[in-house]
Amino acid sequence: MPKHDHDRPEAPGEFRSEHDLLGDRDVPADAYYGIHTLRAVENFPITGTKVSSYPDLVTALACVKQAAALANRELGLLDGRKADAIVAACEEIRGGKLHDEFVVDVIQGGAGTSTNMNANEVIANRALELLGHRKGDYTSLHPLEDVNAGQSTNDVYPTAVKVALDLTAHRLLDAMDVLRSAFEAKAAEFADVLKMGRTQLQDAVPMTLGQEFATYAVMLGEDHRRLTEARALIHEINLGGTAIGTGLNAHPRYAALATGHLRTVTGLPLTVADDLVEATQDAGAFVQLSGVLKRIAVKLSKTCNDLRLLSCGPRAGFAEINLPPVQAGSSIMPGKVNPVVPEVVNQIAFEVIGNDMTVTMAAEAGQLQLNAFEPIIAHSLLKSLTHLRAGCLTLAERCVTGITANREHLAGLVARSIGLATALNPHIGYEQATAVAQEALRTGRSVQELVLDKGLLTEDELRRILLPDNLARPHLHTAAEG
Amino acid sequence: MPKHDHDRPEAPGEFRSEHDLLGDRDVPADAYYGIHTLRAVENFPITGTKVSSYPDLVTALACVKQAAALANRELGLLDGRKADAIVAACEEIRGGKLHDEFVVDVIQGGAGTSTNMNANEVIANRALELLGHRKGDYTSLHPLEDVNAGQSTNDVYPTAVKVALDLTAHRLLDAMDVLRSAFEAKAAEFADVLKMGRTQLQDAVPMTLGQEFATYAVMLGEDHRRLTEARALIHEINLGGTAIGTGLNAHPRYAALATGHLRTVTGLPLTVADDLVEATQDAGAFVQLSGVLKRIAVKLSKTCNDLRLLSCGPRAGFAEINLPPVQAGSSIMPGKVNPVVPEVVNQIAFEVIGNDMTVTMAAEAGQLQLNAFEPIIAHSLLKSLTHLRAGCLTLAERCVTGITANREHLAGLVARSIGLATALNPHIGYEQATAVAQEALRTGRSVQELVLDKGLLTEDELRRILLPDNLARPHLHTAAEG
Amino acid sequence: MPKHDHDRPEAPGEFRSEHDLLGDRDVPADAYYGIHTLRAVENFPITGTKVSSYPDLVTALACVKQAAALANRELGLLDGRKADAIVAACEEIRGGKLHDEFVVDVIQGGAGTSTNMNANEVIANRALELLGHRKGDYTSLHPLEDVNAGQSTNDVYPTAVKVALDLTAHRLLDAMDVLRSAFEAKAAEFADVLKMGRTQLQDAVPMTLGQEFATYAVMLGEDHRRLTEARALIHEINLGGTAIGTGLNAHPRYAALATGHLRTVTGLPLTVADDLVEATQDAGAFVQLSGVLKRIAVKLSKTCNDLRLLSCGPRAGFAEINLPPVQAGSSIMPGKVNPVVPEVVNQIAFEVIGNDMTVTMAAEAGQLQLNAFEPIIAHSLLKSLTHLRAGCLTLAERCVTGITANREHLAGLVARSIGLATALNPHIGYEQATAVAQEALRTGRSVQELVLDKGLLTEDELRRILLPDNLARPHLHTAAEG
Amino acid sequence: MPKHDHDRPEAPGEFRSEHDLLGDRDVPADAYYGIHTLRAVENFPITGTKVSSYPDLVTALACVKQAAALANRELGLLDGRKADAIVAACEEIRGGKLHDEFVVDVIQGGAGTSTNMNANEVIANRALELLGHRKGDYTSLHPLEDVNAGQSTNDVYPTAVKVALDLTAHRLLDAMDVLRSAFEAKAAEFADVLKMGRTQLQDAVPMTLGQEFATYAVMLGEDHRRLTEARALIHEINLGGTAIGTGLNAHPRYAALATGHLRTVTGLPLTVADDLVEATQDAGAFVQLSGVLKRIAVKLSKTCNDLRLLSCGPRAGFAEINLPPVQAGSSIMPGKVNPVVPEVVNQIAFEVIGNDMTVTMAAEAGQLQLNAFEPIIAHSLLKSLTHLRAGCLTLAERCVTGITANREHLAGLVARSIGLATALNPHIGYEQATAVAQEALRTGRSVQELVLDKGLLTEDELRRILLPDNLARPHLHTAAEG
Repeated sequence: MPKHDHDRPEAPGEFRSEHDLLGDRDVPADAYYGIHTLRAVENFPITGTKVSSYPDLVTALACVKQAAALANRELGLLDGRKADAIVAACEEIRGGKLHDEFVVDVIQGGAGTSTNMNANEVIANRALELLGHRKGDYTSLHPLEDVNAGQSTNDVYPTAVKVALDLTAHRLLDAMDVLRSAFEAKAAEFADVLKMGRTQLQDAVPMTLGQEFATYAVMLGEDHRRLTEARALIHEINLGGTAIGTGLNAHPRYAALATGHLRTVTGLPLTVADDLVEATQDAGAFVQLSGVLKRIAVKLSKTCNDLRLLSCGPRAGFAEINLPPVQAGSSIMPGKVNPVVPEVVNQIAFEVIGNDMTVTMAAEAGQLQLNAFEPIIAHSLLKSLTHLRAGCLTLAERCVTGITANREHLAGLVARSIGLATALNPHIGYEQATAVAQEALRTGRSVQELVLDKGLLTEDELRRILLPDNLARPHLHTAAEG
Repeated sequence: MPKHDHDRPEAPGEFRSEHDLLGDRDVPADAYYGIHTLRAVENFPITGTKVSSYPDLVTALACVKQAAALANRELGLLDGRKADAIVAACEEIRGGKLHDEFVVDVIQGGAGTSTNMNANEVIANRALELLGHRKGDYTSLHPLEDVNAGQSTNDVYPTAVKVALDLTAHRLLDAMDVLRSAFEAKAAEFADVLKMGRTQLQDAVPMTLGQEFATYAVMLGEDHRRLTEARALIHEINLGGTAIGTGLNAHPRYAALATGHLRTVTGLPLTVADDLVEATQDAGAFVQLSGVLKRIAVKLSKTCNDLRLLSCGPRAGFAEINLPPVQAGSSIMPGKVNPVVPEVVNQIAFEVIGNDMTVTMAAEAGQLQLNAFEPIIAHSLLKSLTHLRAGCLTLAERCVTGITANREHLAGLVARSIGLATALNPHIGYEQATAVAQEALRTGRSVQELVLDKGLLTEDELRRILLPDNLARPHLHTAAEG
Repeated sequence: MPKHDHDRPEAPGEFRSEHDLLGDRDVPADAYYGIHTLRAVENFPITGTKVSSYPDLVTALACVKQAAALANRELGLLDGRKADAIVAACEEIRGGKLHDEFVVDVIQGGAGTSTNMNANEVIANRALELLGHRKGDYTSLHPLEDVNAGQSTNDVYPTAVKVALDLTAHRLLDAMDVLRSAFEAKAAEFADVLKMGRTQLQDAVPMTLGQEFATYAVMLGEDHRRLTEARALIHEINLGGTAIGTGLNAHPRYAALATGHLRTVTGLPLTVADDLVEATQDAGAFVQLSGVLKRIAVKLSKTCNDLRLLSCGPRAGFAEINLPPVQAGSSIMPGKVNPVVPEVVNQIAFEVIGNDMTVTMAAEAGQLQLNAFEPIIAHSLLKSLTHLRAGCLTLAERCVTGITANREHLAGLVARSIGLATALNPHIGYEQATAVAQEALRTGRSVQELVLDKGLLTEDELRRILLPDNLARPHLHTAAEG
Repeated sequence: MPKHDHDRPEAPGEFRSEHDLLGDRDVPADAYYGIHTLRAVENFPITGTKVSSYPDLVTALACVKQAAALANRELGLLDGRKADAIVAACEEIRGGKLHDEFVVDVIQGGAGTSTNMNANEVIANRALELLGHRKGDYTSLHPLEDVNAGQSTNDVYPTAVKVALDLTAHRLLDAMDVLRSAFEAKAAEFADVLKMGRTQLQDAVPMTLGQEFATYAVMLGEDHRRLTEARALIHEINLGGTAIGTGLNAHPRYAALATGHLRTVTGLPLTVADDLVEATQDAGAFVQLSGVLKRIAVKLSKTCNDLRLLSCGPRAGFAEINLPPVQAGSSIMPGKVNPVVPEVVNQIAFEVIGNDMTVTMAAEAGQLQLNAFEPIIAHSLLKSLTHLRAGCLTLAERCVTGITANREHLAGLVARSIGLATALNPHIGYEQATAVAQEALRTGRSVQELVLDKGLLTEDELRRILLPDNLARPHLHTAAEG
């Protein structure tokens, strides 16, 4: 059951009264949030997870409010002393303070209004304190008229979400680099380990274990580029569009000024969208980002499936590699160790794929001038980003770096493999190669033995053809036999 | 590119003129469909797949129209001679005739109106012929006023779709039985083949191959029951609700009468929904059916994944079973045979899971008194049902029945298995079992050898403990050692 | 970033040392969990959400352990004093104590092993205390050998998850009843309010607002029955199957005995699965439950879409009903009130649909004798159940009960409607009705006016035809005009 | 039921005998396909839809085979006369001939082997004819040794699929341009039509209908760019990697040469992947493309939802715009016209979203060195591309271009709107604006009336504030009031 932060002792004097369109309400005297937040907490007792669980989102809200205050001061629409106090409060939040005052539920109606209201109230009350006033003294500095001046939830909230996604995506990109490096190190370590490649789960032709691990690194590198591209799309924001993108009641220079300040505050290359009406209602950049996260999830999951396959055993499976044991595997089976780290990454991938569906539904449900469902979009994307990051780091640190290869077993599998017949095609012909392969399969003998027995190749020829370097990459058959 | 059946030579005299609200149009003179169908074909050039590709849907439409005509005659709302002609035309269609006149696209706007219009026109024109009139002579018998009398697309179409789904589901159920029998036969054949069970892809404890194959049969049996239940839900129909379920302009006895006739015509236990307004807009039974088809797909896919795993090899994989070769596997690798039949079933499963998402989106998009998106729901469900049926039959006939076991290899894996140590727990204690397991893993020796070497058990005790019957099901440890 | 409960001050003497296969580790001295839990917390720093966030799951684990202890005592496999202590510890947990000791992450590898280990350790340490021993004194009572006796994660975990799902589903069913009652009350309140029904978002024919609200109640009633059926499927458990369902090392009577005790402890009609090997690997019942939750979500979302449509306005929309204001809607638009409660329910629905995809992926990924991905299945289903419950209650209490109708506006829409022409069909004929409809649309005049002007009906006839009771349900046209 | 093309009359002498690993089979004498195709048709009787239903895929296969033949000739690995015949056969297929010989099912096991075999056989037999030989005379020119020389399904098939996707994506891009232009034309036509904007389905503030339609064009423009980017990713191919990407048995120069020829043949900027092992198993580019198609679907669906909302009526809905009637809407309701074209586009969008799920599942299921499920990926993507194209063209031509605006009604809604109060904020203050708004709502009077009555503004001031240009874009409040 969700619990609400405002469940504080109701001793007399510990509350202040606040007012909104619906009437008066008592707010805990020490709370930085106010009546709008209070109502939202009551209206949305859904998950028990508060906006504060996404520090990047709280930080992003403070960045936006700070940029807006700076723009408003510059346009003469906000008194300098008030602006300074607002900026100071925002800086504190960006420094990690007051995050636990962001108490509204991550799943909420109202297109993010409650999150915006929560931010307005916390910043206003902290600014009031800094100005020497009591919390709740909104005649001195007002959550809506001052902190939210020239703004609407409909431009503030998507902008803050985009900034938060960027910050969180940055962390994921770093984690992907860590994982890529771990795979690259293994690719180098296993560069000379010959093994059988498999297609459709059937023995195919030889390759090196290094090549196999290199593919995982290459995939991560590609995904890194795709995520970087998707991240660039969320740099286009609609700050200044106000309610529906027409900029009603906004100063003509506000959008450019506020975006400029936000660029400075965040250090991100943000730009004003060309068409603010479109930008206000469009969830396309979120869908694109989610699609890329799904792509990353799909490939991470495939990689973990491979790791689990290659390490299955110890005796009745492939047993090609060993994953480092990180915990006991079973209470009933002595000595059993399971691939628990790849398994947890698989599950993160399944969650991210589910989240993408949620984002898709929410994006499609937008109507006319606004998408009212951005809170679940933000929640889903932030979950996907943070869980993928945790998965990448865990996989790198608790699994990949400790992987070892069963070199002798791998060499034995190649030596006994019927797939070697493929490499003999150019030397003894497809027909003879097929005959040899079939005899090997029928008799249990090795391809090499049969080829030598039949005098099809000399030992030296065979050795040269089966050199790892000749098997694992294209080479000139004629030259090799010179 | 979609091609339209009405692209017939435009020679003079080969057309008849028809009229609707939008004006006059030439319809091919030999076409049984009319102007409404013609416009729909032009309006929806989407997939090139016509309603005729679902014979069960065409049949179901004829059943509904026949039942409506019988009810209308009984209520005195339709002339006996007209009713007879309509019934005769419907009987012909149910017998397989005129199906190629159902030319509207399977994906269409209008909540099925065009499919209903197509049915009305084809039936009317065939009935006109039977009455000795020319096609298009609608003053003698009218597609809307006579064939569609007392009906609305909004009750006819969902009713026909439900009847069609039932007919098609019946075929799937039969195919599931065929596949279940194939697995049961293998379970019996392999009842005495001991093998290592695996959890989390790691060697676990022994079981029989028969037990493994029996699970696939049991799963299909369960799914059969779930599909039978979901099928029962679509027996509740809204015929008689007319436009929005209020039954406006319908005779108070029509709903019961028409449903009764439809019960007779189809042989299905159809019932009138308790709340026709709800039934007219509700897509819940479709979502439920789709969810069950997804469940079947998930489990078929898991089964095929297992078959591919167990047969992977021939030398570097599990190689526990052999799937029968049905085609050459590779143009480059001599003698390679791939698990192509399980692979195609996996793909059907992925398609069905995607179709379920389509059904979900379409069902959620219903608004107020109707779901306008039933055509894509019908298309998706009919595809899932027919493809799953094809998959079950193909898997049974071209794969499962030909599977063989590598009995010696399986026995060897059990004999060499460290998982046997688990079975020794109750006899030598968990601690000693663990020590033996670890030594076996380290030295490559067998658990049995070590136990005998150390004098922990006698040969006879060991033999008894490792009897297949004692390993593959619960038994009394103390009694066994009497 | 996830924080771990075990981050406690590292003062000397505040730790105890525990041992497992991987070596020794210090565990906080006051922790009830032990070394296996500690490692799992370190291995899975994924979401920061602990198993304790699902009280029903913690309770269910205690129920299963209690039932196992009772069965083991009865079979003479567990000393009476130990059994009593284990049972007492389980009772405490079921009473709400020690839940915060269940600290492993909800997303974890290992098929639930860590959750099972966490339960074993907490129960063992509490039982040790009750027996007068120190925590960690496992020679006196052992987490694995005593608390987990005769069990495997592979039978304990899915059983506990099923019990937890049942408990949580029960709460959802109650919430659905609350919401259904709220809709039924409104259906009664609005039983006489005539309004225009709409199909494909176009004006159709009249109905009552009561009929419209009744459909929402009917849908919930149907969904209630479907969820009740899906719940019955999870009453089939695999307790006693041990590692892979063969019951290796389990007493032949254990499965039936333990299930019997669990039936008593939980009060649920649990049964042992017919085929324990199948039951151990099968995730079908979870997929089925998830599919039904998706169905509920789809229909709740459709209902909320309708509520938002019907209340859109206040002046430029349908404005048929008013949702009660629960918070201010906008910081920039004075007096704007938004449908925030339906919006939050829409978002829960989107999340549930995404969760279903996660469950589907996880279920399909099961391999051979086990599905290693049950933790994400459990997490997804428990989230869906609890959030749907919160959504139903919030929608009932903060929205539906406060809905009012704009009766005059609704009556006016019917009076001006062209859809009334449909009701005149049986009286003035389809052709004249069409002509009247078209003239009304062209001139802006009402259908009634035109009919009277043209002398097609008398005022009295018209009045009788347009009686709400005659419009909103089937009636005998001829009789009505007697 | 799927029907197979090879069901030809079995008269004596009308068959030729062909041979493969599994034995001999009779192939229809006039068939260009051969024994491998025949077996595949029998093995995969799934959908009844043949590969020939995707002309771009058949063309792409011919392009790849042509490029391979040219490279092989250049490397001296293919006789010039054979190469010429193969090239000529490929040119014919690219010209549209022999497409109906591509008879294998679109859903097939074997990672595309059967499609590749089908292409090899058709090209070989046509080349044989061109060389004056009989079909089936494979000693003169062989499907595998000559047409497939230096190739593997595992490099040919994904390459052909990518070329096909590019060709089909190109057609979609053109259709998106057509639709974008249609929306732009309407945006220009409605540039001066003031209307109420809506957020969360509640009246918000004014905008122009032109702005509203412009957003749909802007969205399409953005999606066009995203699709163009995703298209670029599929220009990276793995031709020359052979079985698993190691290029075993391929000439070291083959990959570059063949890709160069394919560039020339197709006119596409194709490049060889950096890591062919990774490229052979990676489905990332397909997932990315599918994600972008889903994004397009989501936004098209949102656009169609808006069109249906804005046109709902004619009397009891928004009735802001009129969609052109394209067919009669109802058999029971005279004069009803429904938004059937947007509805069909919604359904295409739902299908594309489902297809994306299928692609996701299939991509995740790849194992080790290959993804065996590319056929369903190709099928899903080609369906999505072609149906989206059909949807865009249909929407442009049969709906958007014919849309008209109800200008007076729209103006009236703005004039009566309470949202106008927002525009007065900067002039009369938030507090007075709120009071006016609330009085307007309570009394039913207009905001303007009340403002003038109360003497808050002069008629001239009010007129200037409410100028469309001042309402629909940011402006200087003080300047405006000069």
